[in-house]
Amino acid sequence: MISDHVRTNTYRMAILRNSESIRGKVVLDVGAGTGVLSIFCAQAGAHKVYAVEACSIAEQAVEIVKQNNLEGKVEVVRGTVETVDLPEKVDVIVSEWMGYALLHESMLNSVLYARDKWLKPGGVILPSKAELYIAPICDPVAEDRLHFWYTVKDKYGIDMSCMYDFARKCVMNSDITVNTVTVEDVLSHPARFAEIDLYSVTAEELRSVKGQFRCESFGSAAVNAFCVYFTVTFPSPDKAPPLVLSTSPFKPETHWKQAVLYLGDAVEVVQDTPVTGEVCMYPSEESTRHICIHVDYTIGQEKRQSKNFSIPDWSAETQQ
Amino acid sequence: MISDHVRTNTYRMAILRNSESIRGKVVLDVGAGTGVLSIFCAQAGAHKVYAVEACSIAEQAVEIVKQNNLEGKVEVVRGTVETVDLPEKVDVIVSEWMGYALLHESMLNSVLYARDKWLKPGGVILPSKAELYIAPICDPVAEDRLHFWYTVKDKYGIDMSCMYDFARKCVMNSDITVNTVTVEDVLSHPARFAEIDLYSVTAEELRSVKGQFRCESFGSAAVNAFCVYFTVTFPSPDKAPPLVLSTSPFKPETHWKQAVLYLGDAVEVVQDTPVTGEVCMYPSEESTRHICIHVDYTIGQEKRQSKNFSIPDWSAETQQ
Repeated sequence: MISDHVRTNTYRMAILRNSESIRGKVVLDVGAGTGVLSIFCAQAGAHKVYAVEACSIAEQAVEIVKQNNLEGKVEVVRGTVETVDLPEKVDVIVSEWMGYALLHESMLNSVLYARDKWLKPGGVILPSKAELYIAPICDPVAEDRLHFWYTVKDKYGIDMSCMYDFARKCVMNSDITVNTVTVEDVLSHPARFAEIDLYSVTAEELRSVKGQFRCESFGSAAVNAFCVYFTVTFPSPDKAPPLVLSTSPFKPETHWKQAVLYLGDAVEVVQDTPVTGEVCMYPSEESTRHICIHVDYTIGQEKRQSKNFSIPDWSAETQQ
Repeated sequence: MISDHVRTNTYRMAILRNSESIRGKVVLDVGAGTGVLSIFCAQAGAHKVYAVEACSIAEQAVEIVKQNNLEGKVEVVRGTVETVDLPEKVDVIVSEWMGYALLHESMLNSVLYARDKWLKPGGVILPSKAELYIAPICDPVAEDRLHFWYTVKDKYGIDMSCMYDFARKCVMNSDITVNTVTVEDVLSHPARFAEIDLYSVTAEELRSVKGQFRCESFGSAAVNAFCVYFTVTFPSPDKAPPLVLSTSPFKPETHWKQAVLYLGDAVEVVQDTPVTGEVCMYPSEESTRHICIHVDYTIGQEKRQSKNFSIPDWSAETQQ
């Protein structure tokens, strides 16, 4: 994770730029991992940082804090933020809580819990805002994989074109696919469909994050998927522009990539064809930490369609 | 899977080259999938092909057989080869049964069952032989990932070098990693450590496939892993050289890639340093279809070491 330079560097810049809010203050790092953000806060002049981490990686955080001679400033607290007891309230909460599609296996609920229990009135949350975007895309790789079935006859002398419809159902399924979307495959300006203010949002409101969208196609293409991504924004002191950590396909890649939602059928669009609809993100019934996405959409003159998506279980990947 | 050209084309060539054994004969395809190998056999002149497939893909196989006007020749039989009842014994068994590292989730036991129950005396098995190879390698990507922890201080002002040992244990773990090994990273000629004759091997013998190996390093390098791969060989009529489907890193890539086994520590070798040992492959206790690999090895003057590896659970990937 630390090797995701966009992520780590944006947090570092944001923490250093907010040093006025941090200097001499008490900070809580929710889900501190190896303690990197906590150490950035210490470097920004924090008086004390509580690095709360439930997993065994907390042991490494203790070592790293020692190796950087910050034992006096950064205190690693092993436990969940819902259960740990801190000796004082805090001025600043910092957290890197975002999951795939923002909310998949995210720790946002823990951040809100920490805010309500430990943040002093008027305290600062880094980042302070999250926004969700959607755009129609054409994924040519998926289409190539499907077109393959028409090529088998030439390659091996067997007509397998009847596999096309079956394979289309398999590939264009209701899984949320986490993948890097190529800029050229994005068919319109992305539309923002939801904004989350970390100072005011409630856990109850997160049970249904939804909003409408309207895009207009750049040109002629076949829409076969939507791409969903997020940004988070850090407050800036004075009149400096706020710092944004973006997972947009138009920005440098992050480990979050983008969430791709395949439609059942590709729909042809021309320049300015409107693509409109509503997105609703909600926790899965099986596991509240897993996210589902429901999209109602209308492409041009086509009739309204809707599709439900969810993230399949993956094996854990080793991440830095 | 069909889009793995090396795999599909080698089977096709092997079946066509063995048309003398197939023409006018009865064939059993074990685990037929979409029925591609069955249709190749029909094209090679088989009188009748029983395409036995337990999964629902059998429905697609029925469609494909119809679309190729082979209903009279290829009969899709839904079920496992252990339970289906065929009206006759067969002259030829064809099967694509190989898994990762040859034996992981392989269907070889089903092929042996089919051989013992349905193959006529003197019948043909395609392929007829499997061989397993091992070679010491240096995986520079793994080393780069580990070296990253020494670069964090320059990048972000935090000394995280104490993560190196911890990360080494995480990356160089006991998982069998399925990955494409680059030719340049292979440090010696591969050594064959086991051979399986499909005409004679028993299910009991497959409970422990083992053998010794000896390699000699091409030059100076740091061995940090072994790579294990397999070949299967098809008989050839007359004096033609046998056809080999190889998953060697020295050959064109297949979807099987190679199995990579990371050592705990990298060991320096120079030209002609001997790397010797014994490999044993056996079914996991948790699941008989999952493979474990035990390697005892000695590199140069180092003391004998041993390590057990197993394949972690993955989510199923959609494959063609």
